[in-house]
Amino acid sequence: MKPNLQNDLLLRAARQEPIERAPVWFMRQAGRYLPQYREIRAKNDFLTMVKTPELASEVTIQPVDLIGVDAAIIFSDILVIPEAMGMKLLVEEGKGGPRFPEPIRLYTQIRDLKSVNASEDLSYVKDAIKLTVEKLAGRVPLIGFSGAPWTLFCYMVEGSGSKDFQNAKQMIFSREEDARRLLQKLTEAVTDYLVMQIEAGADVVQIFDTWAGILTPDDFEEWSLQYIAEIVRNVKQRTNNRAPIIVFCKGANQSLIEIVSTGCHVVGLDWTVDIAEVKELFDGSVALQGNLDPTILYASEHVIEQRVFEMADKMGGPNGHIFNLGHGITPGVDPSNAKFFVDAVKRAYNR
Amino acid sequence: MKPNLQNDLLLRAARQEPIERAPVWFMRQAGRYLPQYREIRAKNDFLTMVKTPELASEVTIQPVDLIGVDAAIIFSDILVIPEAMGMKLLVEEGKGGPRFPEPIRLYTQIRDLKSVNASEDLSYVKDAIKLTVEKLAGRVPLIGFSGAPWTLFCYMVEGSGSKDFQNAKQMIFSREEDARRLLQKLTEAVTDYLVMQIEAGADVVQIFDTWAGILTPDDFEEWSLQYIAEIVRNVKQRTNNRAPIIVFCKGANQSLIEIVSTGCHVVGLDWTVDIAEVKELFDGSVALQGNLDPTILYASEHVIEQRVFEMADKMGGPNGHIFNLGHGITPGVDPSNAKFFVDAVKRAYNR
Repeated sequence: MKPNLQNDLLLRAARQEPIERAPVWFMRQAGRYLPQYREIRAKNDFLTMVKTPELASEVTIQPVDLIGVDAAIIFSDILVIPEAMGMKLLVEEGKGGPRFPEPIRLYTQIRDLKSVNASEDLSYVKDAIKLTVEKLAGRVPLIGFSGAPWTLFCYMVEGSGSKDFQNAKQMIFSREEDARRLLQKLTEAVTDYLVMQIEAGADVVQIFDTWAGILTPDDFEEWSLQYIAEIVRNVKQRTNNRAPIIVFCKGANQSLIEIVSTGCHVVGLDWTVDIAEVKELFDGSVALQGNLDPTILYASEHVIEQRVFEMADKMGGPNGHIFNLGHGITPGVDPSNAKFFVDAVKRAYNR
Repeated sequence: MKPNLQNDLLLRAARQEPIERAPVWFMRQAGRYLPQYREIRAKNDFLTMVKTPELASEVTIQPVDLIGVDAAIIFSDILVIPEAMGMKLLVEEGKGGPRFPEPIRLYTQIRDLKSVNASEDLSYVKDAIKLTVEKLAGRVPLIGFSGAPWTLFCYMVEGSGSKDFQNAKQMIFSREEDARRLLQKLTEAVTDYLVMQIEAGADVVQIFDTWAGILTPDDFEEWSLQYIAEIVRNVKQRTNNRAPIIVFCKGANQSLIEIVSTGCHVVGLDWTVDIAEVKELFDGSVALQGNLDPTILYASEHVIEQRVFEMADKMGGPNGHIFNLGHGITPGVDPSNAKFFVDAVKRAYNR
């Protein structure tokens, strides 16, 4: 039996119910900027942490205790899905992020990818979520997440991060059928994965489309957004719309109205749009998450407070707003600045 | 005496005069994708090429001969300005781009930067332009260029490229006065540099704000665009509005109307906006340059042609349009694809 939430600001914000103040959390809040995270990381490799529920839940809860955020987000990596589909995933120290030594280039490789049964193939995430919910004991909601099909596609085809994702682009430009087949397989896997996370206890889920911004608006709709829309529709249906869905398509700011039309509950915004203009554009149709410049956390407390207050003012009140940065918190941030940011949000509606 | 232009499509497009077809050129068209460039580069280091008018003019003209573009752009680098201000600039093989080993961090460093007399301190650019104009003998116009103050600021403060330009951001957030002083010095240097290039024979100039997109819309206006506006105003005045000015602020797509208000003649667009929507938004107030996805040059000829024709259709005719990619041409492109692209543009209005 799931404990009742003592702090449900995130859920009410996501559903646009009245709130006293906007909730606040950070993308990558369970991460390297925290010394307590680095301590655990020093003794365990990254994938071991992801796959050991005790460790994953411990770092998931750290920012709730240390920084005072209004939600936990399960510690994991978006690339667990391609791995569950059968790709070999390597995370090596100092080699610039995770990579797939055998990237997807051929039709036969796409054909041979396994279809994912998340409950079995990603049972370590299920167990990490269950353990985290238990440990949180209702203090704050837990967020589950997945990479969007397009972003996973980029990594799988490229094998790693890339400057311009030439190989991924080549596949959509010149081998449309293969590209569609792979994106369709990913759509099914992501759907099953998000449903599993909600059933395991995630209160909210977020879809990250980190590489949305490398596509033209037309290509974004064709190669990314239609698959996200299918996921949103099916996850809502299969879970009876139990958990609000946040869609964050970094850099796709020309397609915000189209993102709303996926039926998601919250649109995540990067910092290159004016949130007040977006609010006006959306006219209350969804909640907004974001969108301060992540580097603001390197500024002085005075400037951090000023920017937080300005953003609260831009939104004209807390309803329908989830405070966040416009991208993940970076490893060099001083945790005391992150905590100051969170405290500033908590003060912002009582000035 | 400057030779008359045989192909002035670029100039007429920039001034929104009637044209038979849109002109086409590529950012970084004098570059590594051309074997003929690599041949010269193999025998000379990068800065030697930039500083030797004979070499710079030779690679500047290569894409006119080999690819058939409608304009040449002088071969140079945006970092020659900080170097002329007294910073040591290093371009080492295989070390990831040019860098400044002593980045600007202190007030005293800003104070000690030299003010630039472009005609003297950057005389090699002047000489390269004069020689190129002579060699081109009126075949196509020559484009001069400069980095925008904000982009130069980013490199000077950071010392190199960066993922999030933390140090540059810290300076604008926390040391406003130092930041303004540096940006003002850069504004003066860029103005003088562009005026010198026009006086030396550049028919058009482009201001590149490569790092515009890392700023919020408010910060972009405050820390980048106001300085660009000052440059546009002063260059037009000092040269009697002789050469059209293109402003390309990559990623600043939330501020396009504000960019128009600088008084520039052409707005360069990256590939993440729909050019038809921008055209409607601007309602004929400026010409547009762009904006195909640079990775399209890795696609098949069929797809390249399709995208070129689609773009011509989106613009509803050639007037006020300069065909280009939404960013520089990349080193892996097959020159025959670049040539096919250019030929497709030339066919696009006679279908």
